[in-house]
Amino acid sequence: MRDVVEIGMGKTARRGYHLDDLTLVPSRRTRGSADVSVAWQLDAHRLDLPLMVAPSDAVVSPTTATVVDKLGGLAVLNGEGLWTRYEEPEPVLARIVEAAEEDRLVAQRVIRDAYAAPVQPELVAARIEEIRGTGARTAVRLSPQHALVFANTALDAGVDVLVIQGTVISAEHVAAGREPLNLKTFIALLDIPVVVGGCGDYQTALHLMRTGAAGVVVGYGAHPGSTTHEVLGIEVPMATAIADAAAARRDYLDETGGRYVHLVAYGDMTTGGDAAKAIACGADAVMLGEPLAAAAEAPGQGWYWDPTVSHPKLPRSWLHWSRGTRDATEPEAAAPGLSEVLLGPTADASGARNVFGALRRAMAKCGYSSVKEFQKVELTVAG
Amino acid sequence: MRDVVEIGMGKTARRGYHLDDLTLVPSRRTRGSADVSVAWQLDAHRLDLPLMVAPSDAVVSPTTATVVDKLGGLAVLNGEGLWTRYEEPEPVLARIVEAAEEDRLVAQRVIRDAYAAPVQPELVAARIEEIRGTGARTAVRLSPQHALVFANTALDAGVDVLVIQGTVISAEHVAAGREPLNLKTFIALLDIPVVVGGCGDYQTALHLMRTGAAGVVVGYGAHPGSTTHEVLGIEVPMATAIADAAAARRDYLDETGGRYVHLVAYGDMTTGGDAAKAIACGADAVMLGEPLAAAAEAPGQGWYWDPTVSHPKLPRSWLHWSRGTRDATEPEAAAPGLSEVLLGPTADASGARNVFGALRRAMAKCGYSSVKEFQKVELTVAG
Amino acid sequence: MRDVVEIGMGKTARRGYHLDDLTLVPSRRTRGSADVSVAWQLDAHRLDLPLMVAPSDAVVSPTTATVVDKLGGLAVLNGEGLWTRYEEPEPVLARIVEAAEEDRLVAQRVIRDAYAAPVQPELVAARIEEIRGTGARTAVRLSPQHALVFANTALDAGVDVLVIQGTVISAEHVAAGREPLNLKTFIALLDIPVVVGGCGDYQTALHLMRTGAAGVVVGYGAHPGSTTHEVLGIEVPMATAIADAAAARRDYLDETGGRYVHLVAYGDMTTGGDAAKAIACGADAVMLGEPLAAAAEAPGQGWYWDPTVSHPKLPRSWLHWSRGTRDATEPEAAAPGLSEVLLGPTADASGARNVFGALRRAMAKCGYSSVKEFQKVELTVAG
Amino acid sequence: MRDVVEIGMGKTARRGYHLDDLTLVPSRRTRGSADVSVAWQLDAHRLDLPLMVAPSDAVVSPTTATVVDKLGGLAVLNGEGLWTRYEEPEPVLARIVEAAEEDRLVAQRVIRDAYAAPVQPELVAARIEEIRGTGARTAVRLSPQHALVFANTALDAGVDVLVIQGTVISAEHVAAGREPLNLKTFIALLDIPVVVGGCGDYQTALHLMRTGAAGVVVGYGAHPGSTTHEVLGIEVPMATAIADAAAARRDYLDETGGRYVHLVAYGDMTTGGDAAKAIACGADAVMLGEPLAAAAEAPGQGWYWDPTVSHPKLPRSWLHWSRGTRDATEPEAAAPGLSEVLLGPTADASGARNVFGALRRAMAKCGYSSVKEFQKVELTVAG
Repeated sequence: MRDVVEIGMGKTARRGYHLDDLTLVPSRRTRGSADVSVAWQLDAHRLDLPLMVAPSDAVVSPTTATVVDKLGGLAVLNGEGLWTRYEEPEPVLARIVEAAEEDRLVAQRVIRDAYAAPVQPELVAARIEEIRGTGARTAVRLSPQHALVFANTALDAGVDVLVIQGTVISAEHVAAGREPLNLKTFIALLDIPVVVGGCGDYQTALHLMRTGAAGVVVGYGAHPGSTTHEVLGIEVPMATAIADAAAARRDYLDETGGRYVHLVAYGDMTTGGDAAKAIACGADAVMLGEPLAAAAEAPGQGWYWDPTVSHPKLPRSWLHWSRGTRDATEPEAAAPGLSEVLLGPTADASGARNVFGALRRAMAKCGYSSVKEFQKVELTVAG
Repeated sequence: MRDVVEIGMGKTARRGYHLDDLTLVPSRRTRGSADVSVAWQLDAHRLDLPLMVAPSDAVVSPTTATVVDKLGGLAVLNGEGLWTRYEEPEPVLARIVEAAEEDRLVAQRVIRDAYAAPVQPELVAARIEEIRGTGARTAVRLSPQHALVFANTALDAGVDVLVIQGTVISAEHVAAGREPLNLKTFIALLDIPVVVGGCGDYQTALHLMRTGAAGVVVGYGAHPGSTTHEVLGIEVPMATAIADAAAARRDYLDETGGRYVHLVAYGDMTTGGDAAKAIACGADAVMLGEPLAAAAEAPGQGWYWDPTVSHPKLPRSWLHWSRGTRDATEPEAAAPGLSEVLLGPTADASGARNVFGALRRAMAKCGYSSVKEFQKVELTVAG
Repeated sequence: MRDVVEIGMGKTARRGYHLDDLTLVPSRRTRGSADVSVAWQLDAHRLDLPLMVAPSDAVVSPTTATVVDKLGGLAVLNGEGLWTRYEEPEPVLARIVEAAEEDRLVAQRVIRDAYAAPVQPELVAARIEEIRGTGARTAVRLSPQHALVFANTALDAGVDVLVIQGTVISAEHVAAGREPLNLKTFIALLDIPVVVGGCGDYQTALHLMRTGAAGVVVGYGAHPGSTTHEVLGIEVPMATAIADAAAARRDYLDETGGRYVHLVAYGDMTTGGDAAKAIACGADAVMLGEPLAAAAEAPGQGWYWDPTVSHPKLPRSWLHWSRGTRDATEPEAAAPGLSEVLLGPTADASGARNVFGALRRAMAKCGYSSVKEFQKVELTVAG
Repeated sequence: MRDVVEIGMGKTARRGYHLDDLTLVPSRRTRGSADVSVAWQLDAHRLDLPLMVAPSDAVVSPTTATVVDKLGGLAVLNGEGLWTRYEEPEPVLARIVEAAEEDRLVAQRVIRDAYAAPVQPELVAARIEEIRGTGARTAVRLSPQHALVFANTALDAGVDVLVIQGTVISAEHVAAGREPLNLKTFIALLDIPVVVGGCGDYQTALHLMRTGAAGVVVGYGAHPGSTTHEVLGIEVPMATAIADAAAARRDYLDETGGRYVHLVAYGDMTTGGDAAKAIACGADAVMLGEPLAAAAEAPGQGWYWDPTVSHPKLPRSWLHWSRGTRDATEPEAAAPGLSEVLLGPTADASGARNVFGALRRAMAKCGYSSVKEFQKVELTVAG
């Protein structure tokens, strides 16, 4: 059954599948869209949408976090981003956008320099409190390297969900001369749900589940500007990664006699169809970044970037323009609202608008009424 | 034999094939084109061509329905389209075409608004009578949702064939608080042939056959502007869908001791070669829309759309220009007639002209003399 | 071993391979190019190159036939082309070239009209005599439909090799009310070698061998402007077709106790590498048309067409520009000579120049010294 | 296990994989980049980077050889290139660059003519001494045809490593009337390490190992301008070739009771990810040419060529512009330094900068700390 090919004499590789390789094929039953629920329960939090918004400064600001909360999702603020490095990040954002409009290599340098400023703990607290003040749920992302430094500040400020996320992390980081974060010990001390990742294989997913995390991020957040494959040779075929992590979830459920860890798929999703396919492979929710960068409210004003863009020595993405084919004369008013991007209605047929209306409709046409059930839908691979 | 791959641990997908993946390979016998028949017998109706024209307002008007009838095919008027919503649909069509020439997003909104007007039952009757008045055969399409409302009107007006068609339908629609159409009961009451669809798998095809339908539409009508894959993640690889439905036809023939239900392939066909391959996979006839939109007589004046374009909240296609590479200076006279599109002769080598001359010639070169026999031609998949 | 896939329930297709899917991989021995022979013996004729030039009016005129003979190949004049329809074909060629420069659809009509004039038997004789007069070998192509009409004329004029060729032919043509050509009877009466084709499968190849032909053309002459796949759905994956025909050659050799029929591959070859791969699959020689259309001496002045372009009702190719990326300002002098195209030297690295120098070098690097041996070289398929 | 497909009846081909077909998937352990070593020990030479720079005049001059040495790699000067044909190669280089800017076919002729001048033995000695004078390690490439002529000169001048390299070589060259180089005898007489190649299969690799070489070059140096596939039909899928050669290394290690021959992968590598994947397939080091042509110091000023470009009769590559999308107005200052290309830091996310920082990081993310260990990393093939 395991799909293994011989690369050369004595060297094998496993076949992996991207979401793009798959399609959903409706079967004998259909449903009305109104009878379908896309709600998601993460620990004590019930969300109308199975959505975490990726911790990218291009999409999540204290303001947009509040909007996303009202629309039913959970926005993750980057605890080590511009909002916690600068008291007034707006001029910094303006410089990035301005540079992006002119020259992509210059823009990469501007963005690298912007992230060279130190994170200020008091701003971590202030941003969380700012979001909480609106009544919205708060989630903040910290890197494994700095989790110990900033976690208490975040907790004291009342954060609801903590996300410990690096592009690629493991439960077994080896570093000479420096004690790495012990996720298990760390999580045991917290009494809020922790989501950890990203990862791309069964073993890492299983080990991350054993740390006590409430959720595991599957995938490295690949977006249309990503070049991780070119730079490092690393790429995780998302359909395979999600299915493998779902197998880990099943085995961990068995080994613990009932602890269910949520899988949050992150990467290679730009449309509603992509999100539907991630769930079909076994995800409980999706983490989206780039698709929201198109929104009028997005701080990046149409540009998307994440921590792989701002790396000081070896960036692994380009700043990416998320509002479709660029037209210099297009008026700003043409950008859709976050509400249109997530819930519609829309007249745009690209698949990048009304993402969760599309998910609901895909579930209905395939005859499923909940996200969990939809993980069983049949898949086809193009020949 | 079943071609199944492992996507990830414990998750499989079936391999599916598109018409584009296939080619026909002539074998040891050839025939003269003149000795080949492409005729189609649907219930009491004998048609010179195995052709239904898709219920798109961009191609089927009362006028073009008459032309198609003369050329040997059966045009299906959309019973819930512009001709039954507006007494004078011409200005509405003109607005759509005008918007399409300018901006595709604006055009999508114009089309959405055009279809917001209510269907007028008296126009359903009037359009059918208008076509009948020319001596042509009439076919009208109703959605499963409104079939009960308008069917009697259509029957009273003397329609010859009824087409109950949604993009994706099933014989088992589940809707809370509302009784869905029971196709079996509905069809039993009618004494004209009913064609139902679309569907994309063996089970649904078999269940639709059991409703008593004379024909089943296989496929969701994908055309070059379709984005269903992007929007919903749903896509039916047509070659696989047709072959599966043909297996259902065979099994139903056996289970009923001889009832033969016709398969009408719909989607992913833009050339004569595509139509030939659909029949090679097992179809009895093809439903074409987009290829006819190029014709000079087409109401869409070169633009194609179908109900997936005009959806009020979640369109799943873009308006599509069907006359090849756009050239603003191309005179209208350059558009081929419906007659050239369907029967030639033509000097255009694109495959989109003389579609049924091409089918006839493909059959001749492969040595077959009827559509039914041609379902046995050998297929090759590119490596 | 047979590579068969399931398209859908109960419907299978064989996997076929194009020359493009393959690469040659040199193995442990190499040779000097000077020690390699690419000579070809067809019946009594020894040729320096394993080359027939396709019967296209765009490349073979009485003049170029003579040049090709000097370079070592065998040019096939189209016995039913412009040279046998017009006493002075030059103005007709000029009209085609002029139209091609302006509008491709108009050019298709011009070409169609040009071929509507009747073939004049006395011109068939005159053209053959014109070529013979230079001391060159002569070959002429006739269609199966008109072979009986013109063959005697050609024989009387002293033709050396007769080519009976339609795009797709069989040894078993069925036509109501008209006796088709019986190839076996026909060939038995002739005492010059006859080459017949094209075909694309084992059965047809075997049956054509049994007609007594000296050679069989494998392939339908696909060139970069071909649209047979789009128009008819028919396409022959050349690598598979050649390998199958080579199996027929082997079986026929056994069944006759030693009669060796030559395989002439025709189609999908634009470079020296393509020709090398065709031989690697089992061909004894290649029939090239389009690559020679780039030559300065070519009657088509850079444009290529064959009989599939000029079909009166259903053309299956576009006129194709063969001199690489078009540059309106490129001076005519830039076109290579036939000598550079076939034998080099060249400074052009596209693969379309010095085609047989490339074949020789490919054989040398793989360690083979004759065309027949080179049929055993190992192949790789890209993963 | 061997992955063999049937091309046609009785004809098979092995499936081969390109580096592009593969991705690395990190597994359960990660490491800090600082704990990773990318050092390479070739015989007595310890290099900080597993890097040989390809013997292309476009990248290796006596000056850049020194720079590469300081950065940790080993540059191979072409012993039969411009530096040994001309006392002052600068004007020749200038002519090539100037022609390249204008017309690619003219440039190919200029380059061909430039390499028609004879190699001057005294210049071979002088260039080696020039590099040695800076304290840098020296390596020089000679062709198998001229190795005997120039080797003593190079040895007398104090070269550290000799590279005997043709595009495709074998240990068993057959040439009528001329005794080819016997590599085994030749190498036995030298007391410096010799690297030989290129080759693309198990047998040739094994035979080359048996000549006593310290290293074997795997691959034919394909770069983005290469057309060997088009010209000759020959192409070596690098992943398969490296894995096969690694099997030969293993078998040779066993047969000799411990002689380890280094594999130097050459071809199809333009980014750090490509280099990482070559090592993952079994290479000990990489030979890079084209990626370094982008550097400001490169003699080709952004253009890349190798001996396949300058062939007098049958070139198998085009001159290739290596600084990304061409912009006529781009100031020369925009070119990165060799230091940025090899070691970073960089703001460029294309993967073509900081190649060895990327390798180090890929190893760290996959949990490996040495190049040799990294040969065991798991591979995935896209579905």
